Amino acid sequence: MTTSTPTPRYTVAVIGGTGPQGKGLGYRFARHGHDIVLGSRAAEKAETVATEVSERLAGLAGAGTARGAANTDAIAAADVVLLAVPYDGHDELVASLASALAGKTVISCVNPLAFDKRGAHGRVINGGEGSAAESAAEIAPEATVVGAFHNVAAPALWGEDDFLDEDVIVVGDSLEGKQVAIDLAASVTGRPGIDGGKLRLARVLEPFTAVLISINRKYKTHSGIRVTGV
Amino acid sequence: MTTSTPTPRYTVAVIGGTGPQGKGLGYRFARHGHDIVLGSRAAEKAETVATEVSERLAGLAGAGTARGAANTDAIAAADVVLLAVPYDGHDELVASLASALAGKTVISCVNPLAFDKRGAHGRVINGGEGSAAESAAEIAPEATVVGAFHNVAAPALWGEDDFLDEDVIVVGDSLEGKQVAIDLAASVTGRPGIDGGKLRLARVLEPFTAVLISINRKYKTHSGIRVTGV
Repeated sequence: MTTSTPTPRYTVAVIGGTGPQGKGLGYRFARHGHDIVLGSRAAEKAETVATEVSERLAGLAGAGTARGAANTDAIAAADVVLLAVPYDGHDELVASLASALAGKTVISCVNPLAFDKRGAHGRVINGGEGSAAESAAEIAPEATVVGAFHNVAAPALWGEDDFLDEDVIVVGDSLEGKQVAIDLAASVTGRPGIDGGKLRLARVLEPFTAVLISINRKYKTHSGIRVTGV
Repeated sequence: MTTSTPTPRYTVAVIGGTGPQGKGLGYRFARHGHDIVLGSRAAEKAETVATEVSERLAGLAGAGTARGAANTDAIAAADVVLLAVPYDGHDELVASLASALAGKTVISCVNPLAFDKRGAHGRVINGGEGSAAESAAEIAPEATVVGAFHNVAAPALWGEDDFLDEDVIVVGDSLEGKQVAIDLAASVTGRPGIDGGKLRLARVLEPFTAVLISINRKYKTHSGIRVTGV
């Protein structure tokens, strides 16, 4: 498989880059020509995972590079930051990185979910008038925060298929910020992401993952969503 | 076009049957062999719209029947009730029909949306821990309430295509209730609906329509969702 260099070609810091979602998305971005810096609290852990990603990228013509760094170093090296961290501790982590995130395009794929005996469901944020992405935007007001990549399944990201058979819906209050995620989506799905409206609609995209988890359990699959008619 | 009689063949009362979503879904059900009773507060209005639907069904081999009635008469004649009413006044309407709904399978496609200069968004119900479908289940506790058909666009329902290129996700706490909506979905999309989990996940499906409305405005289309991997 060969990939031509994407235009534009981004350097993406992946905060939570050692978790399955961050590692998987970072791998997808790099597989199709972007450069990634996996971030972690501990640089060594990030470097170990980056080596694992680099080994999978070896021999792929057109692939970008992968390296690891401590979170703030990763952010400093990047134009774009993917927030791929668990919701528990999310607000505190973003607060600790807020000054580093200033001026960056920040893509949140954080899913605030809860699980009980009835399955997965969305956590209520700010009395139903909030989302992880909106929280990040409030905590890091000098960043341009958009929401995207909430609904892609980590096992598929780390799998062998060249592209995933699903769409990435992007929400945000900045068209320029959304365009970055729309561009990056092409490295995951083979086609641009879809502009799904304002940032507050992250309140829908984040818990939609609970629906897909329910479907996965029922049908023993890794489901995704596609938008028809676009 | 011919349609073989569906198994099972349902009689569906459509509350809100004179609105675009109710009329369109009712038409789809009848087009593929189910019988519908469009309900309205005024029987005459329902009968007028039922005549319009019947005219479109004429000559379609295998089509079911369409007639109109006052809401309670429509419910009494049916096994299955589709709630396709605006969210404004929804709770009061369901309360007024609660005794008639006892023992019925009730499918809610009600979308509690609000609109402002930033577009469509979900209304917050019960502090983020509620949905129209859950409200219906509370108000009519002897009915079996499921949620489905939230995300299908009315213009496509009333259009010429035999089936819509999208999926219907069904949520509910009763497998039997969900099965009815899963069966009926086949008359809209050409394939069974998809079990999306418990009724509380209607909190996600209902406002997802706001995302599709945003996409429609941006891309000048009638978008829908498909579930991949199932």
